[in-house]
Amino acid sequence: MSIVMSVNAGSSSLKFQVFSMPEEKVLAKGLVERIGLPDSIFSITVDGKKTETVCDIPNHKVAVDMLIKALIDKGVVKDLNEIEAVGHRMVHGGEYYSDSVKASPEAEANFEKCIPLAPLHNPAGLVGYRSFREALPRASHTFVFDTAFHQTMPEENYIYPIPYEYYEKDHIRRYGMHGTSHKYLTERLAEILDKPVEDMNIITCHLGNGGSITAVKNGKSFKTSMGFTPLSGVMMGTRSGDIDPAILIYLQKQYGYTAQELDDILNKKSGMLGVSGISSDSRDIENAAEEGNERAILTQKIYADRIIETVAGYYGLMGGADAIVFAGGIGENAAHIRQMVCDGLEAIGVKLDPEKNNIRGKEMLLSPEDAKTKVWLIPTNEEVMLARDAYKDLLNA
Amino acid sequence: MSIVMSVNAGSSSLKFQVFSMPEEKVLAKGLVERIGLPDSIFSITVDGKKTETVCDIPNHKVAVDMLIKALIDKGVVKDLNEIEAVGHRMVHGGEYYSDSVKASPEAEANFEKCIPLAPLHNPAGLVGYRSFREALPRASHTFVFDTAFHQTMPEENYIYPIPYEYYEKDHIRRYGMHGTSHKYLTERLAEILDKPVEDMNIITCHLGNGGSITAVKNGKSFKTSMGFTPLSGVMMGTRSGDIDPAILIYLQKQYGYTAQELDDILNKKSGMLGVSGISSDSRDIENAAEEGNERAILTQKIYADRIIETVAGYYGLMGGADAIVFAGGIGENAAHIRQMVCDGLEAIGVKLDPEKNNIRGKEMLLSPEDAKTKVWLIPTNEEVMLARDAYKDLLNA
Repeated sequence: MSIVMSVNAGSSSLKFQVFSMPEEKVLAKGLVERIGLPDSIFSITVDGKKTETVCDIPNHKVAVDMLIKALIDKGVVKDLNEIEAVGHRMVHGGEYYSDSVKASPEAEANFEKCIPLAPLHNPAGLVGYRSFREALPRASHTFVFDTAFHQTMPEENYIYPIPYEYYEKDHIRRYGMHGTSHKYLTERLAEILDKPVEDMNIITCHLGNGGSITAVKNGKSFKTSMGFTPLSGVMMGTRSGDIDPAILIYLQKQYGYTAQELDDILNKKSGMLGVSGISSDSRDIENAAEEGNERAILTQKIYADRIIETVAGYYGLMGGADAIVFAGGIGENAAHIRQMVCDGLEAIGVKLDPEKNNIRGKEMLLSPEDAKTKVWLIPTNEEVMLARDAYKDLLNA
Repeated sequence: MSIVMSVNAGSSSLKFQVFSMPEEKVLAKGLVERIGLPDSIFSITVDGKKTETVCDIPNHKVAVDMLIKALIDKGVVKDLNEIEAVGHRMVHGGEYYSDSVKASPEAEANFEKCIPLAPLHNPAGLVGYRSFREALPRASHTFVFDTAFHQTMPEENYIYPIPYEYYEKDHIRRYGMHGTSHKYLTERLAEILDKPVEDMNIITCHLGNGGSITAVKNGKSFKTSMGFTPLSGVMMGTRSGDIDPAILIYLQKQYGYTAQELDDILNKKSGMLGVSGISSDSRDIENAAEEGNERAILTQKIYADRIIETVAGYYGLMGGADAIVFAGGIGENAAHIRQMVCDGLEAIGVKLDPEKNNIRGKEMLLSPEDAKTKVWLIPTNEEVMLARDAYKDLLNA
């Protein structure tokens, strides 16, 4: 048995889980929030018991020391050397990595080169990794990239119809995100169906506050809705997804917005929040829609329609699909959204059993057995993927 | 019998046809190019005989006088009063018009309000109309809008997931273009099949140097790929179509481009030209692809795939479609593109008869009779639509 951690570091947060491998048993999990801000919050759950501490945590290094001390205090590990491996969520691996990679100065350098492609996420990942490496110098560290799974996309699905030099010089292409989740869903469905992963021709919908849809052909990412950045694709909580690019030009000419202002409008003030004027949270939209709020109803329709169009588009592009998988906060819990989407996909053989669809967040087939295109709900688990890849590297070490 | 003209005025061009109605017989057609530039070109074809004149034509007024004189000289009409009606292509009617409208000071004022939505096209339309009104003050003039057919789209298909105030204040929404063509194709297929237009559930692909795809549900535009502007949707000759909007933000931060520079890059240097580095003309791309040029092959793949994804997406969104219609310069003539697209749409029941597909530009069914989703080639005819609407207003006058 080995103790392996999964780590997801944001600019002011740190999410972690402690697994015993290979059983994949979760021994502890937790979250540090508001790092670098007053009244940081550290929470840890062991054996179903959650402890929360509010104190000032000035940086990730302090957060890491604090969480390792807590793991020892709570008896999860006896000393820090018991933690043998750590899987780090590293958002953007560019075109360097189509799989996870053991941390090394070379991997670190390549990852740093991808900072311009993920200017907020990649530096946070680095800070997290470096803090853990310092705290756990004897452990095996592995980088797990959000982009890796999508590196199998064929050229015609990742080159944009813009001057080719921007791909050559600036590496502008479709990369996709949530790769760890799309990969988990693919492997998990293959496991459930007891089929080889290579036989998976499915469309995975990871729908949360961010959201992306992937056409998985023969077990590999064939096309995905997020693109050069996580702004594109379907409508999201606060992100627009794809829009006429000329809208940016028009707004800029009309209001003199800077690039950064446009960035904020489309990333933080659009999507469900922008259309509804109410909230970026689909639960608030649902409540308002039930009360008859017209903008909330419109928001739901646009949200569902963008998913329908994307799923049907991928169904065509990949030459048909056997199943559609829902995951993520909305995908797992918003039964009405799943219903709207599946009702709109009848033309491609999708059928939903309304009764099964009302069950929340449980791994299950939501279609009647005779559905041509089946619908699955699979709660995603990115953390276990981080732990698995870290454990694999540990065994290979 | 009435003589009716169709007019399509660009900023430096004027395209016209003269019809005898209601037979829809073309009596003459022609084109004035390089208006306002040295060595303008005036060409007119009567009875299959084309005459070309090169001279300086300083403005649209002079062009109109010249073409009317030519119509009299060539015996198409005896005097200008014989021209009883003129249908003007007026690009952007905003949300004012869901159908053509008889020219009036009110219609002119509304159309002028839409200039910000089509800053290049609408002023040209106005100049053309005013020149003809002056030359033919006794004729009935009708405005035919490119946007009108698409005004039936439901709200969820035209509101963008951006802050709602930009719709309210700036009228930013999906308008769509090529409406006259999509409408023609819909009505023509209904006529061929001897069915009511309301029974048409089809997807019309108008593919030329510009290109747009429309989901026609119950005979009405349900969604269309061009959006707020003609930049969006599928890949085009020099236009990108939809891309991750964040690419604009990135390029601007990276290179300091102005809004106008981005506009030029995405409208004039992208699409087939941008990816191939060869040409914006699909025939040049085809030739290069046949010689094994990799970027040309890639260009064709991206071009076809964007159409496949859009058509399949609309197929889902509208709940299935009976037929797909190809039209426009590429849609009518590029058999290999039609083949690539239809091969990629097998999953939604599309079948193409490769032999029939090799016939060029002829109105015909390209599928075997048993195809679930049929493929039609219908050469479009926007001019006759202009004449029809102008003639209708003449009869109602």
